[in-house]
Amino acid sequence: MALSPLPPPALREVRALCFDVFGTVVDWYGSIAAEVQRRGLPVDGGEFALAWRAGYAPAMQQVRSGELPWTNIDGLHRRILDGLLAERGVPLDDEDAADLNRAWHRLQPWPDSVAGLVQLKRHVTIATLSNGNLSLLVAMAKNGRLPWDAVLSAELFGHYKPDREVYLGAARLLGLPPQEVMMVACHPADLRAAAACGLRTAYVPRPLENGPGGAMQACSDGVFDVVAADFVDLAAQWDAVRAAR
Amino acid sequence: MALSPLPPPALREVRALCFDVFGTVVDWYGSIAAEVQRRGLPVDGGEFALAWRAGYAPAMQQVRSGELPWTNIDGLHRRILDGLLAERGVPLDDEDAADLNRAWHRLQPWPDSVAGLVQLKRHVTIATLSNGNLSLLVAMAKNGRLPWDAVLSAELFGHYKPDREVYLGAARLLGLPPQEVMMVACHPADLRAAAACGLRTAYVPRPLENGPGGAMQACSDGVFDVVAADFVDLAAQWDAVRAAR
Repeated sequence: MALSPLPPPALREVRALCFDVFGTVVDWYGSIAAEVQRRGLPVDGGEFALAWRAGYAPAMQQVRSGELPWTNIDGLHRRILDGLLAERGVPLDDEDAADLNRAWHRLQPWPDSVAGLVQLKRHVTIATLSNGNLSLLVAMAKNGRLPWDAVLSAELFGHYKPDREVYLGAARLLGLPPQEVMMVACHPADLRAAAACGLRTAYVPRPLENGPGGAMQACSDGVFDVVAADFVDLAAQWDAVRAAR
Repeated sequence: MALSPLPPPALREVRALCFDVFGTVVDWYGSIAAEVQRRGLPVDGGEFALAWRAGYAPAMQQVRSGELPWTNIDGLHRRILDGLLAERGVPLDDEDAADLNRAWHRLQPWPDSVAGLVQLKRHVTIATLSNGNLSLLVAMAKNGRLPWDAVLSAELFGHYKPDREVYLGAARLLGLPPQEVMMVACHPADLRAAAACGLRTAYVPRPLENGPGGAMQACSDGVFDVVAADFVDLAAQWDAVRAAR
């Protein structure tokens, strides 16, 4: 019988997990595509979801560079949406556009998300650490029954990830040194930025993030403290650490 | 059969409840007194709890006036504790003092708190809005099973209640106009400050806040939007509003 490998030592010190949300906890592609289809808009739901999401990083860069004043994600999503609707000649009145924009408040969790979080919450503090604004994250948690101990957002720090202020601000608010906080994400760049601030890292690939045909971001082995197949696997690794104590 | 009075109209607009915590949700007097007794310190637990709490408002005033730089409640509690221990000649090493200071992270909810919050959470967003720091509030919620949707703290705004920045900052983060947010507290001054910012108010008296012989703060009728005997009663009033819709 092969012996199980010892649990990663980094896990033993960790007292709080901070989760990236869009893509890592919830399926933005499937949720947005379904909502666009359901409304019968004259566009392809999947293509529209990808285009909307593609506007996200450039919009945050406009805030980072000072080209735009601080604008929360609801505001950035709406700017991008208005552009896409105009580009595609889709007429939508203000109320319908505002409601469609709130589709981001209603994104569905991946099938393992709630079960894994419930299990992890028994042992450790679980918090969001998302570029999404706080009210968006709170609405999403109520809608999807995500059992966060704390809802932390880039909005609290006036900076978007991957700016250092977000990772270090989260550790400060949680009252912990960075090495006792672990960032959980499906995006290697988010994890690398967290690691550069001294946080621990857990990589949870989400191969369907960009839809059935979508490419995953490349990631080499051995770069992160933990790699887990999903949140239930992450919780199982956590239980192994506790059993080994 | 007497007809039930109509539910207060203010409740119909409210989409989020912000709760004061020390005294309103948890019993600081009983929890601190019990912890001091349990440790066998040569002081009266109840008297010590009252003296510790009595240092709280003056310490926040030192921050407000600029006499102290921003210091979170863990820090202020520790300053007050060190003074009390010195005054009473109680020797306590740094580790024991730090652990005693964290007694404020372990305050026990009132008997109705969890049941009422669980019921309210079904209909409305429930958040803390406390001068306690975020990590204190998160630890307390995990320990006492308080099911907050969001943990909001004065710390996020760099101001202590009753400064306006705290009430208006909470409404902003929740994405709501002030009149759709209701402050819930057992302290009339906290509610009056919230009302001055346009928030709705619910007064929940906690006659035992200062211990069995303690005086309650005076409060006249008709000043607040809602008066409830406890959180279960507040939830029942909420259910009546929903039924009347």
